[in-house]
Amino acid sequence: MPELNAQWRLAARPVGLPRASDWEYVEEPAIEPDDGQFQVALEYLSLDPAMRGWMNEGRSYVPPVGIGEVMRGLGLARVIDSRHPEFEVGERVTGQFGIQRYAVSDGRGVIRVDTALAPAPVHLGALGMTGLTAYFGLLEIGRPQPGETVVVSGAAGAVGSVVGQIARIKGCRVVGIAGGPDKCAWLVEELGFDAAIDYKGGELRVGLRRHAPDGVDVYFDNVGGDTLDEVLRRIARGARVVICGAISQYNALEAPRGPGNYMQLLVERASMTGFLVFDYAGRYAEAIAQLAEWRRDGRLRSREDIVRGGLDQFPEVFLRLFRGENVGKLILELDGTQ
Amino acid sequence: MPELNAQWRLAARPVGLPRASDWEYVEEPAIEPDDGQFQVALEYLSLDPAMRGWMNEGRSYVPPVGIGEVMRGLGLARVIDSRHPEFEVGERVTGQFGIQRYAVSDGRGVIRVDTALAPAPVHLGALGMTGLTAYFGLLEIGRPQPGETVVVSGAAGAVGSVVGQIARIKGCRVVGIAGGPDKCAWLVEELGFDAAIDYKGGELRVGLRRHAPDGVDVYFDNVGGDTLDEVLRRIARGARVVICGAISQYNALEAPRGPGNYMQLLVERASMTGFLVFDYAGRYAEAIAQLAEWRRDGRLRSREDIVRGGLDQFPEVFLRLFRGENVGKLILELDGTQ
Repeated sequence: MPELNAQWRLAARPVGLPRASDWEYVEEPAIEPDDGQFQVALEYLSLDPAMRGWMNEGRSYVPPVGIGEVMRGLGLARVIDSRHPEFEVGERVTGQFGIQRYAVSDGRGVIRVDTALAPAPVHLGALGMTGLTAYFGLLEIGRPQPGETVVVSGAAGAVGSVVGQIARIKGCRVVGIAGGPDKCAWLVEELGFDAAIDYKGGELRVGLRRHAPDGVDVYFDNVGGDTLDEVLRRIARGARVVICGAISQYNALEAPRGPGNYMQLLVERASMTGFLVFDYAGRYAEAIAQLAEWRRDGRLRSREDIVRGGLDQFPEVFLRLFRGENVGKLILELDGTQ
Repeated sequence: MPELNAQWRLAARPVGLPRASDWEYVEEPAIEPDDGQFQVALEYLSLDPAMRGWMNEGRSYVPPVGIGEVMRGLGLARVIDSRHPEFEVGERVTGQFGIQRYAVSDGRGVIRVDTALAPAPVHLGALGMTGLTAYFGLLEIGRPQPGETVVVSGAAGAVGSVVGQIARIKGCRVVGIAGGPDKCAWLVEELGFDAAIDYKGGELRVGLRRHAPDGVDVYFDNVGGDTLDEVLRRIARGARVVICGAISQYNALEAPRGPGNYMQLLVERASMTGFLVFDYAGRYAEAIAQLAEWRRDGRLRSREDIVRGGLDQFPEVFLRLFRGENVGKLILELDGTQ
């Protein structure tokens, strides 16, 4: 049994991009599981844009991480000790174990991982929360129909890359918005997107006009800001705008600007709807099975951007999300825990 | 048959509030109806916030009124000459006849008015397009359930006052947002709203907290701007935000600010949906019958703010909408046409 745990705790609420002084690295004795609990050793940490929101004060869909608390985060882990009837030592699981080496859990929200389906890190990506987010957000809220034009922003990210591929599977024309020519080439050449628009190249408006000439039927928004506003200008009659995230705004120093073109919703009788994947927890198994089948058939390609750096790298690697440096699912692999 | 028609034509695209120089008053020979057409004499002109939008250049749900064209507008009129098989001289009708004394129509979009149901001006208000807008927007998009909290802005206006009353009929708790104590008193004391919030008194945030303590299930937005943003802060889980108008923005000199709190849609798994009453044209008769029944039973009170000033007053009376001076449906009665 491990004696020493290591953790990243939230030291201060960031203003803008999180800085080193917003974090505290703590080593302390590992907690042993009580009856009904089990202990895990973290192998992979999932780095997600939503984590930035959890660091802010104020009302949201979950309470903020408290100052001095272990940073909240998803991870893939191995059970190393168990006093829980349903989890056995040696099993691999995903769950909200926090940004630390060892964690104790009562099993709530924990999903057992079947590494026969796909390698372990994929269970944090295409077969994990980000894949599930793409699946339910697109299919339940976006409701894409064959032949429709689906646009997704943050298209080279963990959620966006899966959204676009599911839309292709459903017979849609898919346009991705991403930053930089490399990401755009990857979307079209590797993932089969019909087109990709490099917003950093200033091509957003002209690209939307070119690649969505009849308007955008479904827009899956991961970024907010100007991108959302530009796409609203081009929504089609009856469009569905899916609000999944707003990464462009998470580190904003000013109050977020809303989408000034929201009255296009009226002009085009369109809707803008927010969702959270947690509301579909009862259907995770069904979705994972479907995603795994598509992956096995080669119709869904997953990409994990795995940084092998160890826990101490967390604050720096986390920032890659906001610099647009990751392609696919950003994961921090912990060394020395196996 | 009349020889001389009088019209207000759009002379220039307004910047901000329309000024006298944006209009041109024209007298010219009245046009006679061709085969398949009929001629009407306008009796009442409907003055609606949406008209301001039609004066702007650019893409919207209808083309803009062209410079030099007769201003678009709804009116109630009497058929005075007909070469149309379905419309007889003497019948009263509503339709988009424009801001003028006489018009010629082919019958498209024209609704026959039954003044046995209600006095003529009511057919431009509670039984007209504004009543229909309230009816379909609230019931089809807002989908209020008994016991839910419905908030409506522009609550003392033609659409808002009907929205609130229908929500009451459907068993909802209804909170109106309006400008000034007189309007607020009218909503509560005369129309039976559960509460009214005077936004001009700076009571919006505290009023919403007090009168919608469990959040807002349906928000019917006629005004946009800060009001929309404030209500978004307080939407309940699964809320429906109905986008009907944005009168606070129609004369804005700067690009409209979007609702900065739109990410509440995600936090609360809520939707914001635009609509246009025209999409429900096939169900107007059903809705008018229902509205008329409610009115007859005393459950729906209509109020028309009728200005008896004649056509030359149009530019000035139109501005009352944007100064918040009307209560209920603003109508300009034309003299000397009967």
